Amino acid sequence: MTPEEFRQYGRQVIDWIADYYERIETFPVLSQVQPGEVRDALPDCPPEHGESFAEVLRDLNHIVLPGITHWQHPSFFAYFPANTSGPAILGDLLASGLGVQGMLWATSPAATELETHMLDWLVDLLGLPQRFRSDGPGGGVIQHSASDAALVALLAALHRASNGRTRHGGVGGDRYAVYTSEQTHSSVEKACRIAGLGADALRKIDVDAATQAARPEQLRRLIAADVAVGITPVLVVASVGTTGTGAIDPVRELAGIAQESGAWVHVDGAWAGVAAVAPELRWLNDGLELVDSYCTNPHKWLLTNFDCGTFWVADRAALVAALSILPEYLRNAATDSGAVIDYRDWHVPLGRRFRALKLWAVIRWYGADGLRAHIRGHVALAQEFAAWVEADERFELVAPHRLALVTFRLREGDDATRQLMDRANASGELYLTHTIVNGRLAVRMAIGATRTERRHVAAAWRVLSAR
Amino acid sequence: MTPEEFRQYGRQVIDWIADYYERIETFPVLSQVQPGEVRDALPDCPPEHGESFAEVLRDLNHIVLPGITHWQHPSFFAYFPANTSGPAILGDLLASGLGVQGMLWATSPAATELETHMLDWLVDLLGLPQRFRSDGPGGGVIQHSASDAALVALLAALHRASNGRTRHGGVGGDRYAVYTSEQTHSSVEKACRIAGLGADALRKIDVDAATQAARPEQLRRLIAADVAVGITPVLVVASVGTTGTGAIDPVRELAGIAQESGAWVHVDGAWAGVAAVAPELRWLNDGLELVDSYCTNPHKWLLTNFDCGTFWVADRAALVAALSILPEYLRNAATDSGAVIDYRDWHVPLGRRFRALKLWAVIRWYGADGLRAHIRGHVALAQEFAAWVEADERFELVAPHRLALVTFRLREGDDATRQLMDRANASGELYLTHTIVNGRLAVRMAIGATRTERRHVAAAWRVLSAR
Repeated sequence: MTPEEFRQYGRQVIDWIADYYERIETFPVLSQVQPGEVRDALPDCPPEHGESFAEVLRDLNHIVLPGITHWQHPSFFAYFPANTSGPAILGDLLASGLGVQGMLWATSPAATELETHMLDWLVDLLGLPQRFRSDGPGGGVIQHSASDAALVALLAALHRASNGRTRHGGVGGDRYAVYTSEQTHSSVEKACRIAGLGADALRKIDVDAATQAARPEQLRRLIAADVAVGITPVLVVASVGTTGTGAIDPVRELAGIAQESGAWVHVDGAWAGVAAVAPELRWLNDGLELVDSYCTNPHKWLLTNFDCGTFWVADRAALVAALSILPEYLRNAATDSGAVIDYRDWHVPLGRRFRALKLWAVIRWYGADGLRAHIRGHVALAQEFAAWVEADERFELVAPHRLALVTFRLREGDDATRQLMDRANASGELYLTHTIVNGRLAVRMAIGATRTERRHVAAAWRVLSAR
Repeated sequence: MTPEEFRQYGRQVIDWIADYYERIETFPVLSQVQPGEVRDALPDCPPEHGESFAEVLRDLNHIVLPGITHWQHPSFFAYFPANTSGPAILGDLLASGLGVQGMLWATSPAATELETHMLDWLVDLLGLPQRFRSDGPGGGVIQHSASDAALVALLAALHRASNGRTRHGGVGGDRYAVYTSEQTHSSVEKACRIAGLGADALRKIDVDAATQAARPEQLRRLIAADVAVGITPVLVVASVGTTGTGAIDPVRELAGIAQESGAWVHVDGAWAGVAAVAPELRWLNDGLELVDSYCTNPHKWLLTNFDCGTFWVADRAALVAALSILPEYLRNAATDSGAVIDYRDWHVPLGRRFRALKLWAVIRWYGADGLRAHIRGHVALAQEFAAWVEADERFELVAPHRLALVTFRLREGDDATRQLMDRANASGELYLTHTIVNGRLAVRMAIGATRTERRHVAAAWRVLSAR
């Protein structure tokens, strides 16, 4: 494709996206296709000769769009949001255009340095502890996802707990345990399995029935039981905003207990953490100055399209020692000097995209005040929605709703609650998902899409309450 | 950013990228900045108020560009190529605009089905064994990188070797070994460490001095020694195109030996595998019908920007069993039906970008014949370059060069070879990296950037031979 062709089709794609956002409310939020329907519309074999880009755009409209569940629809309230925004899309487009690999500082110094700088900026923006800044022993990096962050936190924890023996000897020589609340995201169990500990190494901390947060005394009990039989507590994962209900674990108390045993403390604030951009929500950060690592995902609720999972460590030495390998073909003067960061040693992959560009574009376009307004708007809408639920005697709230996730159910029971959700989703007017709280079904209303306004939340409540 | 602002700035970014490709040859290939220089030019603190996107583009030119090593420069011959192309950039831009998460089939059916379909198309395009197609027990998925592919291959292998015990019990109960050539990419050692086996579980197979390929009889010997002391051979990784010299391991023989012990066989064709789009290069696929998993990266040498690591398994059951977890908040009717693929169970992260769009755009824009021409052009240039080296008595080739990587050195010795490379890189006119072959330094000339023509290769040889 020549530069001139790129200009021509590039403008068409830019217009396609702008048009998409202008007409997004005309689509059903949840895709209505059946399994196999998209594939059936595609040719069995790849084309022998090249086709026009116009053909791709035509099929995008006719074949792909019907199979899209519109995460950017303002009435998407399922899972957690997956924000995109204009500056993020354009920042990422620039990264595609530059097409550099930032695996080493030397392979594109700006890719590494802008990333380090953005992670330091986020420490300021979110009011995180200074120990996560890169000018001391700590520092931040962009991971693919919070699952990757949990995995590398576990690898660093194993390295530290074993005094480096796991690097060569693996995890077989000792017995290790990992602790997290029963409401924590499945990524922690997945990390235990990937890292060779197996799911049996995971201890689930009971939660308080009212708050759905981990009970510290339960962590103390679990650790004591393991230590008594020679099992090493290696990692405690606390959640700031669980997936089910948005519960906030008591990080300060959990970290205090964990530290007595020497366990690494990782905090998963994948969804909620970015809300600390608003100073009045910085109670979210309580206790973070005591923990070893922290992650939050700007690709969820901070206007930065996937993937952008920001992850900090208080001491990068264990992380880098757990993951570094320097084969001859990657040696270079800058690495040998020790004066630079080589991010390949901070995560699973070697290659890495210039993801800091989109974060830079977002922070500059919105500014700190724009980011605060984005978060505050959604939190206010969620509080209003929760008040409507509370005022309707057929419904009940089932967990605290301090941010922008409201979990509720029909008092009538699980069957009625499920029917309510299924009917709402089948309408195409909104999309919600569910969870189980204290053994009973609950619907999750997660407010946070980039374009969600009061009218969309009000319309959702009209659908849900019209029964 | 309103849709109208997005149109305005979007066009500016499209033009910026088109301009960048038009002027790319005016930049030094290797960035000339010193550590800290980029950061020093950035403000210490994030902006309180939003700025114009024009400011971002201005700083992109003044602060970021000097810190870029231009992987898309036609005289970039370092590492392996990291191709971008117009259709790939625009396909990825569409993925950013749609902003969907394809973690489950239900969360955007088109994202899953187009990906499955593209991986089947690639089986056709590359002439891979039919067992990798999704209509049987096998199937393909896009991974972040070949490192991720090696890791999930090891996890599936451990699951199979342990009859599923590792899922709960971890790797501690048994002793496992992994085998790969001493020339294999460092990702295999990294996978061993991540998966809890440790680097000591990795056995390095000696290579043939002339071909730099793994010696099958050495694998047989290593496996026998392990089995004799009760160690389970779990995984053999063969390379089709090693990073150092592009060596091709004898996959058929290695797989035959591995299978006697029950070990999983994974083939890493990260760079070279895509060359099989040209039928006359399908000797690259020899023996693949015997292996359990295979990966190649269209983001290296097939015009598809990072990340796009394509990975296939002959039997997806072990992979999915090793990685699947179904928490309540991800349950849905389509998953429960068993009629769909949920790609979250095929890799480390949960969230996933709609990466198949860019692959679809590339295959359709170029067609099979366009992709073949792309590969054939680079292979021909490399053969011509190798002939120039061979004809100059000061130089010697140090390994076979059947594709588009030529490794060579000065007969004078390592110091002279290193000076040659450093001087060439400092000139800014080209960029090369090195490796060690049979204990001696060699320079790698990896031809494969999207815009590399004969004149760039000829200019590189003029710089290298003018001494």
